Amino acid sequence: MHSAIILLICAGAVFLVSGDPVSEGDGVHPRSPRVKRAPGDSERDCTATPPYIPPTAKDTTDLLRRLRQGMQSSAYFAGSIQAYIIPAGDAHLSEYISERDQRRAFISGLSGSSGTAVVTNDGSGGGKAAVWTDSRYFLQAEQQLDCNWILMRQYEEGVPTIVEWLVSELGPGGRVGIDPHLVSIKWWEVLEEAMTDARIRLFGVPKNLVDDVWDDRPGPSQAPIFPLGIEYTGKSWEDKITDIREKMSEQNADALVLTKLDEVAWLVNLRGSDVPFNPVFFAYAIVTANTAVLYLDTNKVTDDVRSHLRLGCTTGVSCVQVEAYDTLLSAVEALAADSGIRKIWISSASTTYAVFSKVPESKQILDASPVMKMKSKKNAVEQQGLKNAHIRDAVAKCEYLMWLEDAVPRGSVTEISGADYLQQLRSRQRDYMGLSFAAISASGPNGAVVHYRPSEETNRPITTSDVYLIDSGGQYKDGTTDVTRTVHFGQPTDYQRETYTLVLMGAINEFLQVFKQGTFGIRLDQAARAPLFSYGLEYGHGTGHGLGSFLNVHEDPYFGGSAGVPVGEVGTFITIEPGYYEDGQFGIRLETLAMVKEADTKYNFNGRTYLTFEPVTLVPFQEKMIKFDMMNENQLTWLNDYHRKVRETIGPELQRQGKNDVYDWLMKNTQSFETSRISSGAKAASSVFLLAIAAMCSVFST
Amino acid sequence: MHSAIILLICAGAVFLVSGDPVSEGDGVHPRSPRVKRAPGDSERDCTATPPYIPPTAKDTTDLLRRLRQGMQSSAYFAGSIQAYIIPAGDAHLSEYISERDQRRAFISGLSGSSGTAVVTNDGSGGGKAAVWTDSRYFLQAEQQLDCNWILMRQYEEGVPTIVEWLVSELGPGGRVGIDPHLVSIKWWEVLEEAMTDARIRLFGVPKNLVDDVWDDRPGPSQAPIFPLGIEYTGKSWEDKITDIREKMSEQNADALVLTKLDEVAWLVNLRGSDVPFNPVFFAYAIVTANTAVLYLDTNKVTDDVRSHLRLGCTTGVSCVQVEAYDTLLSAVEALAADSGIRKIWISSASTTYAVFSKVPESKQILDASPVMKMKSKKNAVEQQGLKNAHIRDAVAKCEYLMWLEDAVPRGSVTEISGADYLQQLRSRQRDYMGLSFAAISASGPNGAVVHYRPSEETNRPITTSDVYLIDSGGQYKDGTTDVTRTVHFGQPTDYQRETYTLVLMGAINEFLQVFKQGTFGIRLDQAARAPLFSYGLEYGHGTGHGLGSFLNVHEDPYFGGSAGVPVGEVGTFITIEPGYYEDGQFGIRLETLAMVKEADTKYNFNGRTYLTFEPVTLVPFQEKMIKFDMMNENQLTWLNDYHRKVRETIGPELQRQGKNDVYDWLMKNTQSFETSRISSGAKAASSVFLLAIAAMCSVFST
Repeated sequence: MHSAIILLICAGAVFLVSGDPVSEGDGVHPRSPRVKRAPGDSERDCTATPPYIPPTAKDTTDLLRRLRQGMQSSAYFAGSIQAYIIPAGDAHLSEYISERDQRRAFISGLSGSSGTAVVTNDGSGGGKAAVWTDSRYFLQAEQQLDCNWILMRQYEEGVPTIVEWLVSELGPGGRVGIDPHLVSIKWWEVLEEAMTDARIRLFGVPKNLVDDVWDDRPGPSQAPIFPLGIEYTGKSWEDKITDIREKMSEQNADALVLTKLDEVAWLVNLRGSDVPFNPVFFAYAIVTANTAVLYLDTNKVTDDVRSHLRLGCTTGVSCVQVEAYDTLLSAVEALAADSGIRKIWISSASTTYAVFSKVPESKQILDASPVMKMKSKKNAVEQQGLKNAHIRDAVAKCEYLMWLEDAVPRGSVTEISGADYLQQLRSRQRDYMGLSFAAISASGPNGAVVHYRPSEETNRPITTSDVYLIDSGGQYKDGTTDVTRTVHFGQPTDYQRETYTLVLMGAINEFLQVFKQGTFGIRLDQAARAPLFSYGLEYGHGTGHGLGSFLNVHEDPYFGGSAGVPVGEVGTFITIEPGYYEDGQFGIRLETLAMVKEADTKYNFNGRTYLTFEPVTLVPFQEKMIKFDMMNENQLTWLNDYHRKVRETIGPELQRQGKNDVYDWLMKNTQSFETSRISSGAKAASSVFLLAIAAMCSVFST
Repeated sequence: MHSAIILLICAGAVFLVSGDPVSEGDGVHPRSPRVKRAPGDSERDCTATPPYIPPTAKDTTDLLRRLRQGMQSSAYFAGSIQAYIIPAGDAHLSEYISERDQRRAFISGLSGSSGTAVVTNDGSGGGKAAVWTDSRYFLQAEQQLDCNWILMRQYEEGVPTIVEWLVSELGPGGRVGIDPHLVSIKWWEVLEEAMTDARIRLFGVPKNLVDDVWDDRPGPSQAPIFPLGIEYTGKSWEDKITDIREKMSEQNADALVLTKLDEVAWLVNLRGSDVPFNPVFFAYAIVTANTAVLYLDTNKVTDDVRSHLRLGCTTGVSCVQVEAYDTLLSAVEALAADSGIRKIWISSASTTYAVFSKVPESKQILDASPVMKMKSKKNAVEQQGLKNAHIRDAVAKCEYLMWLEDAVPRGSVTEISGADYLQQLRSRQRDYMGLSFAAISASGPNGAVVHYRPSEETNRPITTSDVYLIDSGGQYKDGTTDVTRTVHFGQPTDYQRETYTLVLMGAINEFLQVFKQGTFGIRLDQAARAPLFSYGLEYGHGTGHGLGSFLNVHEDPYFGGSAGVPVGEVGTFITIEPGYYEDGQFGIRLETLAMVKEADTKYNFNGRTYLTFEPVTLVPFQEKMIKFDMMNENQLTWLNDYHRKVRETIGPELQRQGKNDVYDWLMKNTQSFETSRISSGAKAASSVFLLAIAAMCSVFST
């Protein structure tokens, strides 16, 4: 899956204050085509008398009444607040949110990953309620919201931002509340500045007011935590903590607070499943020069975990303590008050305002977490693990593509049934631990919806007359996968082939890059877009993202990034996934995981080495979609080399697994590329020679 | 000239606190090769007894004594200060500094563009004195400094930064002074934070202490100010001010303070010559919704200027007032105190701390100046002017190259005499107003010194056995020029040709880019470096810079820039100047000015247009330096098209000027490129055909 979802989430701070959250020039903001509203009764009609509310909508009248009571008077603040903001996130600013944390969905009825609700309180039990979401969820919102809610169609002309709306609704003197555990530092600061300009006060309400009215709120996850052995991690948690302490010492940091779930999991070599798709568990960590404390649900500390962490150890720097999850804030307060702690390192991008606000400015080191960088540069064991996981994953993917070639013409496969079958195939591979995200299985026009995920309402058959895009990935103990291929099971149009070829050329251009150590993604982004641009075409999402070692499918670095984690480090894994989306027609995306390695250059300026990308995903591109005459020699050579590598790497694994039919399929679908323009050029040349020789022969024969 | 010098200056804030000012990955920081120290008496020897001081050094003993008196007790602060920092810049943070503002040079004796002096005061008339400069000036420093001065060899291992040194010399409780007119906001803030951490206080001393001991300081420039007509500017100052007010209104800014000399000159369509090379004059401007005030030397307001500005006009928004230059700060204070002025826009990058500190935080809008952006996007008249200036400039450049081909083998030309002759040739062209910078005329190893400027000591003959690099430009009333070509008048080595070709391929790759509106330079930078990287080679400076319409040779945007002024705007002019530098051997740089224009693409996604570069500099590349077999078809086609454009544009101008010998030279040096690999390929093919036909003929003839 591409990075656009994450970028939308990261852009939270921006879309709060601006109608146009990310400049077009930035190239990362997805402009999904509008979902057309279906006619009929499935959508609400609040202008009718009485208003029509479909059965799929949630009745929120009583909930809102109770929420407003909390806003009017509460133990958490003096006086009342006139507006309460309900973000979609959790206390770790996670991409995937557990059900227990889906407060915006609960209060409004609108499910879906993106959206922020705001409820106002007029002091007499009434007020307004509005939810901001993007075009992916417009249809769903009309089906799920009752008429208490105004749908704010984000990014549409004339739709106010949250800030604009609050200013117009409240005016000077107004008081706005928000849960500081659910917002980033940046978001809070942008919001607070805008509120201050409008003479509105922003309050961090320490307890979430939605939780108070959520009677049947799911309890905390009971999913177990389990250790990941050195054979997968390549480095003990003791060594990781030693390295982190070194980085802390370089920065003169006496303490480091880790709040991202994947950073904590990576640091202590533990995994869990408290949120969907990401194999993480709810926890924080604080590291100092001689302590390391995990804050988590202590009920989950099994004997296995206890022995992995060597709990009970009380002296020495390699001891870990565990404390209750909800004591984190008081622990940060204690650090802040501790005169022996001069500087506390908190991650600028991923810390919530709740944690940040406990650290006085004089003690803050606001910088990217050292774990973020260390985690992105995979060690030798992780590198091999990711490569191995991608070999097994490619087996499932090739099986799936082969099966589709047979099943699709028989008319028996839909987007959903296809994705389900692919999941089955993956689950048969060794060390499979689940999906790494919900598959984007998209036929025809659905492929043009960048964040598409098939539902019963949108499910289309996969046919011989449509382009089919499949973007999916799995979690394996040795690595996380994420791959996209686009195929056609009938006769693609010339335009589909042309755009597919431009996308493929973009991916190959990226693979052909040679760059310096430390290079940030933004310097390498244009290469993947250049072929499309030169035809006047483009894609509106990121070119690719880092990916974890049996961790989150999205992590730093990103193409497009200009600070934090560079792409230019040996051992960095990043997807290369250009695409093209023809609204209402078809979508093309080709996503291939790459590993950064040293390039083999003719010279080495001042003894320096240069870097390039090695493909890790090994799944063939579809020959019928490629217009070879558009590609240059370097691109054709790369493509042939790639398919040779696919044959030589996936072929033996297929044989080992006894999948001889898939082996034959693979051989057929990788060898045919050998007849490229190079060979047709050679053929043309040789026919001239043949002519000449024939003529010569005639001469001699006379 | 490339942008590296400017970037060094901009990086001032950074090198103050870090030994490694700009990360290598950024690719913009020049790593000039060390100048080898010459043996003998020309350099000081402070370890000898008595110390040996060469006659070229300045005796600063008395000056330092008097400066320390001022530091010990002064009307400008209570108590004493223990250190005084003397930056190289002026009150407008200019790139080129008038003699009157060269305080660091005056106090230390060290001339040269880069360097900061710090003098400490031990309270009893003594103390230390140190000057930080980069490797370009190490030799010069040993010749110009007496033994009162410690030379701090910036970026060398073990050399402390200014901050580190101050901390070690002063310790907690120390007090450091600096002239707030000479430092950017960023520099001040970085310095202040570091000082605060070390419990040292930083004082802005309102009057420069060096000026107090500079008895024979040059007076203010008497150079006239003159209007630039609408036939050159394309837009009246009234219209420019109207546009600026619109931008101010969008930002809710009630006042805008302009402190950059070229921004003021651009805004009011006036020019001057108060600093070298930049046709500007000392002035500030403040614009509000209904006033526009220029702060300048009112003696320079001639009748011409008066009538151009319609001075005396007192009502209406198109009235300009002039006030004395040194009343600017009190005017800013008055704005700050004016309750009708809610927000004051000051340019974040280019404002001095002196101005910034007069605006309370609640009133600040800290953002790129709107003039910066507007100035960079040239209007139709400016576009044509720049193109015309480059045609005439190319005439001079072609004349020079032709002359060198004849004169160099005769052994009569040196770097300096060559540059002088080129200046003569330029000065004969219409509307010539002077050089736009000191020419980099560099033969052999001198070409590898990125910031080389020939001096009597370094002057080398231009020979038939060396690569010769000439980077030069002129000021014309219709535009500023800046062009670099590298040539060889004998037989270049294969390695020289290989690296020249890689540099040329980089330039062509850049010209072939197609990109989106609003794209920042950093996204386009890799393309120019890619061919070198793929061979394991690189250059350590920026890829190019914007350039003014008869204004500064360096202005925004820059390749490498990620905010502020984008490259992706039709009418933006930017140099494309990759290079390669082989230390001690030769330097190659090919600098060609480009204009951003709409690209002609097959499709237009969602009705959007895409952009590309059009070459504006029209001077041939040297055929003997090019290895055609390294280039791909697109690059060869571009090169042929370029030379066709050179012939068709510069040819007629040469004829018009009656320069028939240069015309013949140009025809010869642009037509030969037609026999490229394409045509040799065609030749090879046709010889096969001929063979075939000959054979066929034989058949028929039998």
